[in-house]
Amino acid sequence: MTLSAQAMLDAAVEEARLGASEGGIPIGAALFRTDGTLLGRGHNRRVQDDDPSSHGETDAFRNAGRQRTYRDTIMVTTLSPCWYCSGLIRQFNIGAVIIGEAQSFSGGHEWLAENGVSVTILDDPRCIDLMSTFITDHPDIWNEDIGE
Amino acid sequence: MTLSAQAMLDAAVEEARLGASEGGIPIGAALFRTDGTLLGRGHNRRVQDDDPSSHGETDAFRNAGRQRTYRDTIMVTTLSPCWYCSGLIRQFNIGAVIIGEAQSFSGGHEWLAENGVSVTILDDPRCIDLMSTFITDHPDIWNEDIGE
Repeated sequence: MTLSAQAMLDAAVEEARLGASEGGIPIGAALFRTDGTLLGRGHNRRVQDDDPSSHGETDAFRNAGRQRTYRDTIMVTTLSPCWYCSGLIRQFNIGAVIIGEAQSFSGGHEWLAENGVSVTILDDPRCIDLMSTFITDHPDIWNEDIGE
Repeated sequence: MTLSAQAMLDAAVEEARLGASEGGIPIGAALFRTDGTLLGRGHNRRVQDDDPSSHGETDAFRNAGRQRTYRDTIMVTTLSPCWYCSGLIRQFNIGAVIIGEAQSFSGGHEWLAENGVSVTILDDPRCIDLMSTFITDHPDIWNEDIGE
């Protein structure tokens, strides 16, 4: 791998910050090949686009376009993937997931690990700060985004 | 419930047929309230829009727009939901799923049932015919759509 996990996370953090600057939920993601090639990046667009289907991971996946295989890809996300995004990772056989933090929210990453996905959690302070601030300031939008 | 399962499935079948007429993968879905109100409907758009994130269920969910809760909603789909779409159903606490058929493909419907989602499989001949014909004619596109 030519890029470190931290370097790949940087792209997702930039996306999360972009989302925050747009008034949205600050979760970003990026899909890389294991050789470090960036396939696509994106961020949660629920607020900006009124689109409940657009989570960070699904937006990055969409922006990567059609791919014949995902086995040699890595999904990098600022936050532990919810069941929706965990299902995406499992269905498309994405080989690895790198997670900025899993303290603010814990989704399906343990289930992914049990099903053969390589899972790395970085406990990144930038990601923790982005989410904890947002959840404190906008609990209603956050709960809407995770179906609570 | 003011609409029968079969009547709700009809909306999903119409979407699947619309997708087929566009040259796409013939999977359709619709999201209803339990009182029979249609919130949104859609179909797989991988081929038409070059969008790998657009499965039947996610397209219907997107077209329904932002909802405060999904507990009293029913996702109706022509085909057993893949892990991606099963994850969507679980994350947003969609209460029930009505499935046209699970013979051509079996996704996460048993996992959903284990996690409290009401699951109904109708073994609908129209759905079986649409998928079996498509899989025979376009195995490459089908495998791409399920990450095989």
